[in-house]
Amino acid sequence: MEQLVNLYNKAKTLNNNQLRKLIRSGDYIGQTAGLSKNMLQTNLIILEKQYALDFMIFCQRNPKACPLVAVTNVGDPFFKTLGNNIDVRTDVPSYNIYENGNFNKTVSQISEFWNENLIGFAIGCSFTFEHSLLRHGFSIDHISENKVVPMYSTNIKNEKSGPFENTMVVSMRIFKKYQVDKIINICKSFHWAHGKPIHVGDPNEIGISNIFKPTWGDKPRPLLKDEVNMFWACGVTPQNAILNSSVEFCISHTPGYMLITDIKEDAETPILQ
Amino acid sequence: MEQLVNLYNKAKTLNNNQLRKLIRSGDYIGQTAGLSKNMLQTNLIILEKQYALDFMIFCQRNPKACPLVAVTNVGDPFFKTLGNNIDVRTDVPSYNIYENGNFNKTVSQISEFWNENLIGFAIGCSFTFEHSLLRHGFSIDHISENKVVPMYSTNIKNEKSGPFENTMVVSMRIFKKYQVDKIINICKSFHWAHGKPIHVGDPNEIGISNIFKPTWGDKPRPLLKDEVNMFWACGVTPQNAILNSSVEFCISHTPGYMLITDIKEDAETPILQ
Repeated sequence: MEQLVNLYNKAKTLNNNQLRKLIRSGDYIGQTAGLSKNMLQTNLIILEKQYALDFMIFCQRNPKACPLVAVTNVGDPFFKTLGNNIDVRTDVPSYNIYENGNFNKTVSQISEFWNENLIGFAIGCSFTFEHSLLRHGFSIDHISENKVVPMYSTNIKNEKSGPFENTMVVSMRIFKKYQVDKIINICKSFHWAHGKPIHVGDPNEIGISNIFKPTWGDKPRPLLKDEVNMFWACGVTPQNAILNSSVEFCISHTPGYMLITDIKEDAETPILQ
Repeated sequence: MEQLVNLYNKAKTLNNNQLRKLIRSGDYIGQTAGLSKNMLQTNLIILEKQYALDFMIFCQRNPKACPLVAVTNVGDPFFKTLGNNIDVRTDVPSYNIYENGNFNKTVSQISEFWNENLIGFAIGCSFTFEHSLLRHGFSIDHISENKVVPMYSTNIKNEKSGPFENTMVVSMRIFKKYQVDKIINICKSFHWAHGKPIHVGDPNEIGISNIFKPTWGDKPRPLLKDEVNMFWACGVTPQNAILNSSVEFCISHTPGYMLITDIKEDAETPILQ
């Protein structure tokens, strides 16, 4: 555990290129919240070509949860519009392999799985607005404690596209009640990264019956009297939609373990200039 | 001409639903700048399914020119996420038919062309930020004069996807030099509608050799001494990319004659709630 904390603290000192190099080498397989600040981080989905059109339409129709920031060419493992030499096979710290709607295993690179029929999708991530909140002086529990943000399945229905439907996944952070308006105002400009929260307050209203049992990530602490739960649409939503679909094979990042890009968080578009 | 002006002035008094009904009936076939203010207007592209994935990736990679705000299901002529009962076959005032890379003809509805293999794409439009500029007290020539905004092919290369490439199309408006910063600040929040201008000043710098010969739309007036040309990425860009591709058949709106939606211009996402 101590070694992991040391490695995370070392990773905190690296820029986007250095960190991605370390991840590619296999020497960093940890989560990426709070790392490579100022640079866009993304969720990852890899699918077979036959599902690509329906999946892109799913993202277009659910832009709060699935802001699509890049797509590879079919069979080409590089995200050319996100940076120089970003290889989807090796540059994410941890991947989930799904088969026939079930989680199969977690791996640290996917070179053996990649083939000419696959296509990669990068989807915006809440770490982007988190960095902005940190810069504004807010404290975020899971970053302070090197944990994974708690994520929950909800009862908020997604817009359907082909086999993809299911409900939205949200991430949750605890803030003081008096800070809510300021936080909303900061987040609204990050439209590549989920924008404004989709819910503030009672978790039951969006179908979360036990806030201490997240579907992914680490258990949060109880609220203090002057605090509130804030929920954002989450880029794990497509994993949920794929799990519930007829898709036979899918690779994603492991929630919390994101792709680091060369795009600035406050860029007008996520396209490398 | 007088009848056209009267019809345009009548159209100006209608809300989005009334105006779309009038267009569907065939009684309004004019341009839509300055109409249905506050509601998102869109460019339209209809393609055969085989080109849909490459085209969606083209839009994703060129978000300034091609902000994708809706996609139909294949064979389904309704934009369900843009509003109630928006029929892509009848609800645009004027359509262009392209065959084998050539403009074929302009028609006022496309029911006879629609088939189960087609898919429709709606792309954000500069009329959205124009309405905001009007509300801020700016005057816009082509709206004051009921003309079509001048549009130009440029030398700004698009990001390639499949058969789609070519260069960006821009629209141009004349403003006072001292107004430029304020205008940029207003436009930047409309990320579904081209956002900030992509160029301000000398047209030659982006490959426009004669500002008085637009590729589409009406000829602009000469600049006064204290004025400047401002250029925005334009939703006609995909038409240009398709004309230059191997696509056999395509339908688009006629530049300037847009689809009126039920989405508010300042909505966080272009998805009907």
